[in-house]
Amino acid sequence: MPQPGQALGRLREHLHQTRLLGSISSSLYYDQNTVMPPAGADWRGQQLALLASQLHERQSSDSYADLVAAAEAEAAAEPTAAGDHSNHGSTRRNLQLLRQELGRQRSLDPQLVASLARAQSRGNAVWQEARRRNEFAIFAPALGELLQLRREQAAQLAPIEPASRSPWEILAQPFEPGVSKARLQELFGPLCAGIPLLLERVLAASGSSTSTPPAAELSEALQESLCAELLESWGYDPSRCQRSRSAHPFSCTLGPADYRITTRVVPGQPFSAFLATAHEWGHSLYEQGLPRGDDHYFPWPLGEATSMGVHESQSLFWECRVARSQAFAARWHPRFSGALGADPWGGSQAFWRGFNPMRPGLIRVEADELTYGLHIVLRFELELALVEQGLPVEELPELWNRRMGELLGLSPQRDAEGCLQDIHWAEGLFGYFPSYALGHLISAQLAETMEQQLGPIESVVGAGEELRLQHWLGEQVWPLGRSVEGEELVAQVSGAPLSAGPFLRYLEGKVDRLLEGA
Amino acid sequence: MPQPGQALGRLREHLHQTRLLGSISSSLYYDQNTVMPPAGADWRGQQLALLASQLHERQSSDSYADLVAAAEAEAAAEPTAAGDHSNHGSTRRNLQLLRQELGRQRSLDPQLVASLARAQSRGNAVWQEARRRNEFAIFAPALGELLQLRREQAAQLAPIEPASRSPWEILAQPFEPGVSKARLQELFGPLCAGIPLLLERVLAASGSSTSTPPAAELSEALQESLCAELLESWGYDPSRCQRSRSAHPFSCTLGPADYRITTRVVPGQPFSAFLATAHEWGHSLYEQGLPRGDDHYFPWPLGEATSMGVHESQSLFWECRVARSQAFAARWHPRFSGALGADPWGGSQAFWRGFNPMRPGLIRVEADELTYGLHIVLRFELELALVEQGLPVEELPELWNRRMGELLGLSPQRDAEGCLQDIHWAEGLFGYFPSYALGHLISAQLAETMEQQLGPIESVVGAGEELRLQHWLGEQVWPLGRSVEGEELVAQVSGAPLSAGPFLRYLEGKVDRLLEGA
Repeated sequence: MPQPGQALGRLREHLHQTRLLGSISSSLYYDQNTVMPPAGADWRGQQLALLASQLHERQSSDSYADLVAAAEAEAAAEPTAAGDHSNHGSTRRNLQLLRQELGRQRSLDPQLVASLARAQSRGNAVWQEARRRNEFAIFAPALGELLQLRREQAAQLAPIEPASRSPWEILAQPFEPGVSKARLQELFGPLCAGIPLLLERVLAASGSSTSTPPAAELSEALQESLCAELLESWGYDPSRCQRSRSAHPFSCTLGPADYRITTRVVPGQPFSAFLATAHEWGHSLYEQGLPRGDDHYFPWPLGEATSMGVHESQSLFWECRVARSQAFAARWHPRFSGALGADPWGGSQAFWRGFNPMRPGLIRVEADELTYGLHIVLRFELELALVEQGLPVEELPELWNRRMGELLGLSPQRDAEGCLQDIHWAEGLFGYFPSYALGHLISAQLAETMEQQLGPIESVVGAGEELRLQHWLGEQVWPLGRSVEGEELVAQVSGAPLSAGPFLRYLEGKVDRLLEGA
Repeated sequence: MPQPGQALGRLREHLHQTRLLGSISSSLYYDQNTVMPPAGADWRGQQLALLASQLHERQSSDSYADLVAAAEAEAAAEPTAAGDHSNHGSTRRNLQLLRQELGRQRSLDPQLVASLARAQSRGNAVWQEARRRNEFAIFAPALGELLQLRREQAAQLAPIEPASRSPWEILAQPFEPGVSKARLQELFGPLCAGIPLLLERVLAASGSSTSTPPAAELSEALQESLCAELLESWGYDPSRCQRSRSAHPFSCTLGPADYRITTRVVPGQPFSAFLATAHEWGHSLYEQGLPRGDDHYFPWPLGEATSMGVHESQSLFWECRVARSQAFAARWHPRFSGALGADPWGGSQAFWRGFNPMRPGLIRVEADELTYGLHIVLRFELELALVEQGLPVEELPELWNRRMGELLGLSPQRDAEGCLQDIHWAEGLFGYFPSYALGHLISAQLAETMEQQLGPIESVVGAGEELRLQHWLGEQVWPLGRSVEGEELVAQVSGAPLSAGPFLRYLEGKVDRLLEGA
């Protein structure tokens, strides 16, 4: 293992401590969402704010800036040893990513950082209230303030960003490095063209078994044990992982050997916890597979996930490509029926259809694979309108409802089912939504390459060999860390630029099979 | 509410942040002992060490010392307003406690603090190993090192302690402010004289139903639901409290409105989880009842628990005086039998006896009310021998076994059941054990006063009016915080100095009733 020079060594130590602090914050977040009693929220908020200010200080202070500069000077002075190009390249890449983040942190007025933290906290509270009472007007002023602060943030960051980047693009960078509106429009265009045609085919067949999932009520205990069985078959190691319950499923990493995932059991939705477990485990596998091996990875940036889109591709792969596959349904149908002591689905094909409802709905988080992308297109358009095209906040509900009708043929009767449904804007997160759709595209494109090398996923899953899929991802995708950005990763692994093609081909094939004999 | 002056205001803000940091550490500790997967231990240790060093810095820095001095000057300059004596006194008491703690923190060589932290961590690991392999020799060097470091700590603290305090006494101060060996010998002497006589009576009746608890196996789910029912009847509020599982039951406070307690279900011990729940809830009630009302309490020292002995008295009150009472058994026997669908005890009197086994045993944490004090006397004697009377570490097992025979008539066959059974010494905690026995004495003396005012506890419990007991403690005990030390608290509430009398009278009465008709 290479011995880093003095400044690099001190920088590494600084980053290690920053990771410790960040993971303490994650631990509190995890507790807050799994165990903490509600009255603990105010104090927890104060704890998290204290850690956030310590983290900001660590990442923006003069002494840290000096340390980064010293490390850069040290790395530049170091002669590239023969055969040592990759080490040299890794150091350069780490320093480049740190320099970029340092620039961002130091560009922000600390007063803005504090104002944003307060506005996010208020925004969340007001949104909860507005949603419960189904009154957008309650939320509108908070949304307006958050937009104003985010625009100010984009303006403060603009001097260190490429001149061509728009405010929305600047805000989206932390989630999706390198992302641009034009590129997203290029990627999402084919979805807007292709999905409605597929949807028409599905709706034409409506009334058939694809449109109504068979009713089945699985007890909490039964769902719990099926989730545990699923994870066990996928290599879950209880000495490094822990599963809990939370209101919304999530995955998080609390330390280099401490991974947590959560699920929830939803009454009347017998597959919800099972699919969420597959999804969150996919996120966790990526985290567990990030490179740690030598001195250039943890706690350096190279050891981090490269983008939210790639992260989502990993969760969607296990949820949609594996757990929703026909072969998987065939294998698990006997286990579900056996555990239940009955087969309310009437055979494994209908059971599989239960995992794959294809129906337009109002709610994004309940959307199927087919229509999910359109929910994202809607939000992407509206964010651009709000952040940089001057849409008055008050007009959001009307525009939301109109575009929802055009894209999905549905009209929300209540804003709680419309523009108040997601938490993201309430916390001032603009620029995040596209990553969800990118995850579908990336998952599909990686899966095509995987199938060229391993054969059809349906066959691998049919043979119960999902660990081969894990192994492939663990060689091709996870160890790349932040050595490449999301789109570069896709191009490097698949040999082609990211496109909507693989995802649309996959959807078409799936619709074909779902409609067969229906 | 009085407006604190400028320095007092800044000091308050400093203490608030210190509380935030301390409670973050407690949150990590809670997670570690309830949820964290084992492989997370190393990283968690690093997180806790980082917080510990931040806390030490906050509590010993020059700038903090300046702040305390400025607040003292401000308080001294402030004229006592007419009728404002109590506010003035509260400020003085808070500053006095802060000054004392500051003196301690600043007396310690940071190198010693770091060495101790490392030795504690190593000590714990080595002790686990020694206990598993039943080999005291594995643990002996670590114990020797911890003793050496603690002696050094006592020496560093000696200049700011009263000249009369011995090293052991100095180490015991953080747990039991004001404690002395002479006072403990005075309090424990009557236990050593009285308990063996009671024990003789019990053993003479052995073979009767007091000596063998009826066998009953209660499922985990059933024990869980009985514990939940217990807490509900005692005012448990799920919006402020949360219950979890852990290897060893504990109670902790994570914020001013965030309380946690844990239990465990022990196979073959049907009352263990139930009694532990009562015990930990007693700790939590005290914490929940500490004063918060005005500007002199939280986050000031006055809003803290005054001693470990008083803390333990509150847990023991609910465990022993309430949950082990005859009236309580009479009320809960039908619920246990009903839940079980059977009565393996054969009536409520035998059920009550099941809650009150009286048998000498080797293990402290499994000891009954009668013999528990003798376990503490043993440890108190041995700590004095180790810390300040020159007992070579190697001779500990032999002396332990001999004194165990003299005090309880039992001889450990293995050190794992003898001097390796407790974790305290493995973490360098010397001076803590007496608080457990003090808790019994304090609980009994407060209970006598309570009975003078409310009537017999058996009657109150028989009427299902335990909330009256809570109310009494919530008026008489909890709001005192650190305004008085442990013994002062007892004297103030009961009107008499603490003594072993009430506890011995209580034990005698209980033994009488247990032997009645046995």
